[in-house]
Amino acid sequence: MYRVVVIGGGFGGLRATRDLRRAAVEITLVDRRNFHLFQPLLYQVATGALSPGEIATPLRAVLRRQRNARVVLGRVSDVDLSARRVRVDPLVPDEGEGTWLGYDTLVVATGARHAYFGHDEWEQWAPGLKSIEDALAIRRRVLSAFEAAEVADDPAVRREWLTFVVVGAGPTGVELAGQIAEIAHDTLRGDFRSADPRQAEVILVEAADRALPTFASGLSAHAAAALAALGVQLRRDCRVVGVEEGAVHVHSAGESDPERIATHTVVWAAGVQASSFARRLAEASGASTDAQGRIRVEDDLSLPGHPEVFAIGDMASVADGNGHSLPGVAPVAIQQGAYVARQIRSRVAGRHDAARFRYRDKGSLATIGRAKAVAQVGPVQVWGLAAWVMWLLVHLLYLVGFQNRLFVMMRWGFSFVTRGRGARLITGD
Amino acid sequence: MYRVVVIGGGFGGLRATRDLRRAAVEITLVDRRNFHLFQPLLYQVATGALSPGEIATPLRAVLRRQRNARVVLGRVSDVDLSARRVRVDPLVPDEGEGTWLGYDTLVVATGARHAYFGHDEWEQWAPGLKSIEDALAIRRRVLSAFEAAEVADDPAVRREWLTFVVVGAGPTGVELAGQIAEIAHDTLRGDFRSADPRQAEVILVEAADRALPTFASGLSAHAAAALAALGVQLRRDCRVVGVEEGAVHVHSAGESDPERIATHTVVWAAGVQASSFARRLAEASGASTDAQGRIRVEDDLSLPGHPEVFAIGDMASVADGNGHSLPGVAPVAIQQGAYVARQIRSRVAGRHDAARFRYRDKGSLATIGRAKAVAQVGPVQVWGLAAWVMWLLVHLLYLVGFQNRLFVMMRWGFSFVTRGRGARLITGD
Repeated sequence: MYRVVVIGGGFGGLRATRDLRRAAVEITLVDRRNFHLFQPLLYQVATGALSPGEIATPLRAVLRRQRNARVVLGRVSDVDLSARRVRVDPLVPDEGEGTWLGYDTLVVATGARHAYFGHDEWEQWAPGLKSIEDALAIRRRVLSAFEAAEVADDPAVRREWLTFVVVGAGPTGVELAGQIAEIAHDTLRGDFRSADPRQAEVILVEAADRALPTFASGLSAHAAAALAALGVQLRRDCRVVGVEEGAVHVHSAGESDPERIATHTVVWAAGVQASSFARRLAEASGASTDAQGRIRVEDDLSLPGHPEVFAIGDMASVADGNGHSLPGVAPVAIQQGAYVARQIRSRVAGRHDAARFRYRDKGSLATIGRAKAVAQVGPVQVWGLAAWVMWLLVHLLYLVGFQNRLFVMMRWGFSFVTRGRGARLITGD
Repeated sequence: MYRVVVIGGGFGGLRATRDLRRAAVEITLVDRRNFHLFQPLLYQVATGALSPGEIATPLRAVLRRQRNARVVLGRVSDVDLSARRVRVDPLVPDEGEGTWLGYDTLVVATGARHAYFGHDEWEQWAPGLKSIEDALAIRRRVLSAFEAAEVADDPAVRREWLTFVVVGAGPTGVELAGQIAEIAHDTLRGDFRSADPRQAEVILVEAADRALPTFASGLSAHAAAALAALGVQLRRDCRVVGVEEGAVHVHSAGESDPERIATHTVVWAAGVQASSFARRLAEASGASTDAQGRIRVEDDLSLPGHPEVFAIGDMASVADGNGHSLPGVAPVAIQQGAYVARQIRSRVAGRHDAARFRYRDKGSLATIGRAKAVAQVGPVQVWGLAAWVMWLLVHLLYLVGFQNRLFVMMRWGFSFVTRGRGARLITGD
């Protein structure tokens, strides 16, 4: 039987696996986690609007009826391109040593992590948002900051606790900043007796000259207005030059000196870097990588010189028609997963499919807050309530699992009406 | 203004606080967590049936409209009975040192932790179930064991991974064992390709001569039958004499030697011990404690010699009419909270309320699995579907917050129909 190994159960890997459900292949999907995570809503877990279980679906549940697929939980530590096999190490140490898994075609979809531009030491004070653990850590920090403000006697100290800095005004940064502002102004109103959460300052720092730099500039202006209405302070043309315990240092264009912002809560939503396995794969194959560590693949998403290995999603660098590389978003990964599945089906059938991968951009969406969003669909720009409804529908549609869709919809309904948040627990250490 | 300090936002502390909402007092509720946890359903988080957010409610949200109450997040580290004050240390180290909080009446409701009969070293292999973190750790262990079995090549190793031991057949132990058996036989059926989860062995170890020893023996027999139908192996008259990496040692009455059960998944549901603050309070007041470290209080739940200090819930030892001490369950704590609030209202009004605390036992409930439960209401014994419906209704009724009730009800509906579990994620390290 033709053996396909898929590494990573994110948008790309899962789509490739599902699209091969009727193919005469044996698929092994390897992931370190036992669930598919709907990353676009992770920021809502970080702000207590949703619970982790509502945006994650066990991979085994998704693939239960797909008899040609099996799921292996493990960490892929190495690849042997000449022998066509990958090494899978067990997650639980007791489980014995790793095993080699042979493939006829390999699909690598191991995603990306947040990156700190060479300042990994910043991570301890400015966590990023890629995993459920990240989201719960940010939720703990944000909610704890309000608690600390409540018991602080010194107004200066209280002010530091009520200052929140989000770095990066891409969709995730904008959404996070908007949600933190809503928590402060709506959700927690009346919850505290000493510190007033409405005095919170939410600062969104962006190195480019506008929020949502990948959107049309008209939509950036709408987003900026919506952020301002929520009380978020947007600092454009402003770079983070340092993060330390209790402060972040930013440098605005035109200023001679950096500014120190005293805060205990910094969230990192700027910059990503391909997973470490991308580097290993590049080394093994001699493929080149871009600045973010993403592997430059061929037109058909295969590794140069290795048509039997595909790299897709956030870890692959693919040029669009205009010479820019495609963004690391779910629709790109999904379309690449579907494309790769088509290629594999052709190969199994003994045909050659010469069609190169083409990304069909169906549009971009970003939400800022309650009933506020921006959407760009080709040349059409939509904002306000209409864009927000589009955002809601698209996210519900792509969420995996009927139960999750229903629960998320209900949570949103409750939050919209009560301005509350169902999951604002401080958990973990 | 009359100052009431309540330590602990569990069933007892929260009830006392809420029942004082119309009293001319200033209440400070101190807790280490920002939420009230519905502990009776914690085992459902441990088995992936519910999400943490569904059984927890932020204390601030509960008390938002109660203007005479404020919530302080902190750790109570000391008490000064003569000066009538408690020391509250901040949870976040940066927040400065602790402060002393004065009271006119103190209500201590700091609960209990699981205990290992002097073998604290067992905890690393046999975690107990008292906090959300405990529940998520157990969920991770249970679900990971099935994953490890899937990749194990050696049948003996696979068997070890598919062996689950629950220690203690009280309500929590019975519920946990039943749920693990249902996960193995129903939820995960078809999810794995190599190891069949239905081969899992779930062993429930109980030192007494029957399951649910606090229930009538007829109900114990019903519970035992329901457990057997689920495939749970009940070992009665059996004591755990050792826990180590990869095994638990048990000693059955009548056997000359202990038996070694090879397993990687042990859950501890036997034995609790009053919180460490109970010891501190006993030291400070000279009050005596029982074998579980619970403080022996007066008929009116006050500390001997300190009518201004009440101890309630799992940390207090109170005799019922027959000389037995009341069990550490939610109804006891709730009734004690209500009683203490009445006492405080009388004192504030300058009256003396001589009524001693009396526990009104409305009954006990334990569920074993899908549509199977036992209930004891005074002399009446109920089992099977009827008891299960009672169990459902009582738990939904006592769950705090309309949104939580609705979500839990829906999760249960889904689980009942699909035999699935909405939250079976492996998270954490």
